[in-house]
Formats: sequence, C-alpha cells, structure tokens
Amino acid sequence: MSIPAERSVRAAEWPLGTRPEGELRVDGARMLRRLAEISRIGARPGHGITRLGLTPEETEARAYLAGECHRDGLVARTDQAGNLVVRRARRRDKPALLLGSHIDTVADGGRLDGTYGVMAACEVLRVLAEHDVELDVEPVVVAFTNEEGAFFPYPFFGSLGLVGQVDTDHAKRMSAHGVALPDALRAAGGDLDTIAEAAWAPGSVAGYLELHIEQGPVLEEASLPIGVVQAITGRTVLDITVCGGQDHAGTTPMRMRRDALAVASRAVLAVERLARSRDLCRVATVGKLDVEPNTTNVIPGLVRLTAELRDGRAERLRTAEQAITTELAQLASATDTTIDVRLDPVTQPVATDHALSRAIADAADELGLRHLGMDSGAGHDAQIVAAIAPIGMIFVPSRNGISHAPQEETDDLHLVAGADTLLRTVLGAGRP
Amino acid sequence: MSIPAERSVRAAEWPLGTRPEGELRVDGARMLRRLAEISRIGARPGHGITRLGLTPEETEARAYLAGECHRDGLVARTDQAGNLVVRRARRRDKPALLLGSHIDTVADGGRLDGTYGVMAACEVLRVLAEHDVELDVEPVVVAFTNEEGAFFPYPFFGSLGLVGQVDTDHAKRMSAHGVALPDALRAAGGDLDTIAEAAWAPGSVAGYLELHIEQGPVLEEASLPIGVVQAITGRTVLDITVCGGQDHAGTTPMRMRRDALAVASRAVLAVERLARSRDLCRVATVGKLDVEPNTTNVIPGLVRLTAELRDGRAERLRTAEQAITTELAQLASATDTTIDVRLDPVTQPVATDHALSRAIADAADELGLRHLGMDSGAGHDAQIVAAIAPIGMIFVPSRNGISHAPQEETDDLHLVAGADTLLRTVLGAGRP
Repeated sequence: MSIPAERSVRAAEWPLGTRPEGELRVDGARMLRRLAEISRIGARPGHGITRLGLTPEETEARAYLAGECHRDGLVARTDQAGNLVVRRARRRDKPALLLGSHIDTVADGGRLDGTYGVMAACEVLRVLAEHDVELDVEPVVVAFTNEEGAFFPYPFFGSLGLVGQVDTDHAKRMSAHGVALPDALRAAGGDLDTIAEAAWAPGSVAGYLELHIEQGPVLEEASLPIGVVQAITGRTVLDITVCGGQDHAGTTPMRMRRDALAVASRAVLAVERLARSRDLCRVATVGKLDVEPNTTNVIPGLVRLTAELRDGRAERLRTAEQAITTELAQLASATDTTIDVRLDPVTQPVATDHALSRAIADAADELGLRHLGMDSGAGHDAQIVAAIAPIGMIFVPSRNGISHAPQEETDDLHLVAGADTLLRTVLGAGRP
Repeated sequence: MSIPAERSVRAAEWPLGTRPEGELRVDGARMLRRLAEISRIGARPGHGITRLGLTPEETEARAYLAGECHRDGLVARTDQAGNLVVRRARRRDKPALLLGSHIDTVADGGRLDGTYGVMAACEVLRVLAEHDVELDVEPVVVAFTNEEGAFFPYPFFGSLGLVGQVDTDHAKRMSAHGVALPDALRAAGGDLDTIAEAAWAPGSVAGYLELHIEQGPVLEEASLPIGVVQAITGRTVLDITVCGGQDHAGTTPMRMRRDALAVASRAVLAVERLARSRDLCRVATVGKLDVEPNTTNVIPGLVRLTAELRDGRAERLRTAEQAITTELAQLASATDTTIDVRLDPVTQPVATDHALSRAIADAADELGLRHLGMDSGAGHDAQIVAAIAPIGMIFVPSRNGISHAPQEETDDLHLVAGADTLLRTVLGAGRP
C-alpha cells in the first residue's frame, strides 16, 4: 500500500467546528496525554510496545489507569478475571452499558490496538460523571486483560471471564516460560478459584460498545473517519495436503508427471477466486505453503498449505467452505493426485446489534463525520461479550492499514473523533 | 508412476533366439555375475550402495574390476585422473573407440547407474579380445571416477580429466569432511600434479559409446528395450523472487492485495505451460518454493522459487528462457509486484553423433530389438567427452523410472540386450 498519510484527513470533510452549542464533547487533549503516558509502559526505544496479558507490564498499565480514574473521581477495581472495571461514584441501579477494549499488546506491538478504546471509554465516562448525565443505562468501562494471548496462549481471557466462559481446568494447567497462569492472574489482582464471580448476571448488561482502530486500510483509502462494524468475521482454516508423485525433474516427461506443486498452485488460485471473482466470502488467503522435498531438480511429491476464509455471515462461510472442498476434489480427480482437506472452523461470525449500529451511525451523522458500514477482519473482545449482550463497534482509520507493529498509527484528529462518536453514541443509545 | 514390472518385458517382442549363426554375443551370465559382485562394494543391507567418487569404496571397486580384466587377459591401469583404462593385450595402433561410464554412486544409490555401462563395456572388450576381432578402431574401456560428485562436489571429475579440462587450482583447494581432494586422488591411484597426462591427444579418440540405464519411465512405458540418445539435455535454472506486500489476511480487502504467493502460483503454472501447451522445451519444473513469512493469517510478502528448464537443443532452451522471462515481466506488471529473475545456464545441450546413433539403431535392428530415439534428461560423462570426440549413447529401461535410489532396477534380459547392442554397435561402427 502506498496511500500518502496526508490523504487520510481532508480538512473540508472534517467539520469539527460545526457542533451545536452546549453538546458534550470529550477532552481530546487529556485523552491523548493519558494515551501517551500509558504507552510508555512496556515500550522499548526502537521497538514497539510489549505489554503482554497477565504480565507485570500489563499490571502496571492497569494500576496507572486505576490511578487516573480515581483522580477523576471514578471508582475502579480489578475483577477476578484480571479486568479493570470502572464506574461512576454516584451509581444508578440500572442495566450496564459496557464500554471497553483491552490493554495488553502483542510483542513489539503498537500503542493503539485495544488501549485506544480503553482510554477513550475512560474519557467518555469522565465526561458523563462530570456532567452527572442521567441515562436509561449505567455506563461502565471494562479494560480487558489478555485479549491477544501473546504470553499465555489463552486469547480473550478477560472477556471470557466477564461472560463466565473461562475453562478453569484448562487455565489451571496453562503455563508459559515457567510461569503458571493461576499465579500470574493472582499477581494481576484476579483469582482463578473465584473467577465465576467476574461473570455478569443475565440481564445486568444492556449492551457493549467497543471503539478500536480498524487495523486495515479500508477507511484510510476511502478517506472516511468512522467505520460502523456490521459483523466480526468468522474464520475457517483449511489444512490442505496435496500428494502427487516425487520424480526426477530431468527424466520424467511432462505428460507422466503428478507434480504436487503445480496442483497446489491451482489450489492457491482457486482459494483466491473464492473471494475475488466468485465473491463467496469476504477474504480468502493461502498464507502458508511447504513443499517436499523442495529441491530444484526434483518434481515435488507433497505440498502442505493452509487456506483461511473469513466472512461476517456464517451461511456465506459455509458456502465458501463447501465450494472450495468441491473444487479441490475435482482438481485431485483431474490431476491424478490426492488432496486431503481438514476443516477447522476457528471462530463463528458475530453480527453487531442493529440498534447499536444505528446509534453509532446517528452519532457520527450528528458530528458531521462520514461513515462506512464494514466488517471487522480481526477478532475483538466484542465477539465474546456478544454471548450475553448486544454489541456495537466503532472503527477509526489505521495509517497504511498497519497494526501489530510499531508503525501502527492513527491521526490525532481521528482518535478524538472516534471518542466523540463513542460519547455521542452512549448519549443517543442511553437517552431516557 | 504405476506401471507394473511385468509390462516392461514382452516375450513376443524379445526375439533373443533370432540371431544369425556365428554372430558374436556377450556372455550375459558372466556380465551379470560380475555386476552382482561389484555391487557388494559399498552396499549396506537395507540401504542402497554408497560408493562415492574418490573414496576407498570406489578404489576397491576399481581394484576388483582391474583384477577381473587381468584374469581375462586384458590390460588395466589407473590414469592420473583416477579413471581405470582397459585395453586388449594385443594392441593395434589405431584411433580409440572409447566405451565406458562411471563406477561411483550417489549416497544410498542403485547398482546400475554408471556401473552397468562399465561392466557391459568390459564384457564387450573381452569378447572382442577372445575373438581377436580386427576393427578400424581400437576399443578401449574407461571406468570414470566421480561422475556424481557426491563426496567431492566436482562432478564429471574423471571425464574432465580425460579431456584435459580439470581446473587444478579449484581441485587443489577442494576438501570434504576434512579430506583434501589431491590426497584422495593420490589414494585412488591418480595424481593432480601430473593430471594433464590423463588427457587424450587430439585425434587419438575416434568416438565414445556409453551404455546406461534410462533413469526415467519412457522406455518402460513404451515397452521398448533400447533407447538411442539424440541429445543430452542442457539445463537452465532460473532463480525467481516475487516481491509483493505482506499484510493482515483478515483486514486487507482482496482488491488491495499484492499477494506474493498468488502471483508465484501463476508463475509456477506459466513454467509448466512452457513444456506442456507451448512445447518450448522438453521439461520445465518448479521444484523449490519458499514463502515468507509463511504464516496462516498473513498475506505472503515474498516468495522465492526455482524454475528448471531442460532441452536437447540450445536454441529451444534460449527461446524458452526468453518466453518465461517475458511472461514473468508481464505478470509483475499486471499484479503490481516485482519479479526478479536470475538466469543460470548450468549446462549446454550436447547432441550425439548421427553416424554413431545410426550404428546403434542398426545394431538394435539386427538384434530384432525395437528402439526409440530420445533425449537424455540426466547428465552423463558422454557430454564431457563430446569436447574431443563424437559420442553415442544407448539406454535400457529403468523399472518404474526410478534411479538414485535402492529401488533402481532393470530386468536382466534388458541388461544383456543392452550389452549385445553395444557389442554389435562396436562391430558395426568399427568394421573395416
């Protein structure tokens, strides 16, 4: 991609000065300052940020955040799953509208993935507290732990705790680099033995809103400041093995070959066609391909590859799976090879709530921010929380589409606009 | 390949009993017995034969062969390049008709690649000596050393010595597993310092005939006992690097991708087409392909692959090189990627001599053996000897096309028929 950064903000489309008098807005400078401060935790000069879930760095970030919230007069506590839960001091007995994301990173990750959404949610909560805004729902911020699963390979640990779906037997046995997960959780302020208490009771959560960077190039390319997420895409991985005939590349005539790589190349293009000309799923990718024996003068006998299909609608994902399985069977038959396919449906698609998405779109419209309905290609805590409540997600542009890397960046104007959209959405969705 | 072994010999096509009375024939049983004896040298039960060039095992095989030749009344000596040279005791002052192949193997190789041709040539020479046959040329057997280059990576060392083309500076510096090549050559009976004496003077060699297993499936599939080699194919290797854009497989829309593997897959199929539908060269193979970063959920940013083109005619090889280079440039342009191509013309094609090929075909006809004109896909000492003399090559079938493996095999009837064809060719080509 080579979209110049300048293209991503067009002043004429960015009417920050057009808001009606008296409407609430976030304090953008304060949010950006706090985002800069928390970004020092786990940062290494010349590298990105390494603030892995359930490690001391993440705990330090949680402590920083709790301190800032207390300073603002908010109430922050760490739940048994290691999530920081922040409320207004004057608490109303109403269903919660949760606002959140995660504060852990991948190794050498960026400063925005997850953490931006948490800092914006805290800023929104402070504005609502400062003005003692009365709503039909009570806004509550959650800073989830270990969404990435980069240290303990248990991604979405915090949000699974919130919905009561942590597999405690599995978690008890898990350790990484000699550290047991239960010990790390205790050091983070949680407790695996009583983790069931972190789960929210049915009916106690009215909804969940997550503000996040897009982590892709779509909004930037379209010069749009806001994405309204329609679905978090499901993901199916196919492990494909093409078994042909290993032979001498010099002495075996073309018509007698059963070249596993030539067949695998047709499979790669068939996977690509699924999401291109056939439009059966949103994206389809062969990311991994290994050849045996992988020698210049030997016809490949075996190729293993993975195909990853993603779509926001379960029925489309099923259709695409079926289509590629059928096409690979025909390919094997036509080439006198065997093609073994193992389907692994990693995650199911999760749709966002129509009413919350409408509230996000209305909020952006009120702010004069152009927006786009789109699917999320990456996974988010929202897809876990969807098990107990309607969810909504707001995206802001990612510069050059880059994420999970030190180069992850979003313009300050976009960060502030996203936070204002979150605030306005809460006001709209929660207005009595 | 799945050609049953039974198909490879059809009794009705195999008129071993039709020879005219009084015509010379080899002693098939004697040749096969000696082939079995020499095959014990370097053999490991359950594995193949490991008799690497310029190692003690090869020297032992050379000593065995020299002993058998002396017993037959022939004169055998090792030249300065480590080749065993065998002549009749009653020597005529005529240009030599060399008959030979090599006695080294690859690691865990078969018993026939090279060695069969040497044992057959010795058998032919013995028959000619026994009957004191007078010819226009003097038959001389050469058992070449280190054709494979499996221990010292200097393939064709022996035949290069015979034509005076060993790079002595390079050879002096070469060592393998702590053994210096000059020392190994001395232990084998040669001498790098005087290796120039191994070279045959211009005009002293009238021709060279090599009998060899096909190492491919063509003769077996066609149920033909004899192949008359038209050319030893040249070989060009293209190192191809496809550079696209590494991106997130979930968040990057299909239309914004520059997927290096999807482009490389088109390159693999373009290489295949060169030798299939376009028929620009005899075979074209992508044997090696490596993907970066080779991760399921990341769009590949870089792919390195090798394309190997082989053909018996230099102008066809040039045309195929040009065609694939042009097609890859168009592919790069169409896909917004860069494709870097580095051409490495490894070996030039070498044509066999028309008169010698005619003599081989006539010999097979006289013996009632059906034959096929064909190119050799593998390299042979003959292509080196071609620098100083006209060459001819005879192929016999390889069971299942397998070579360079313990399963390398040829039916006894085919081995004897090949030796008789060699004998008859010498009589025909050398008849006064």
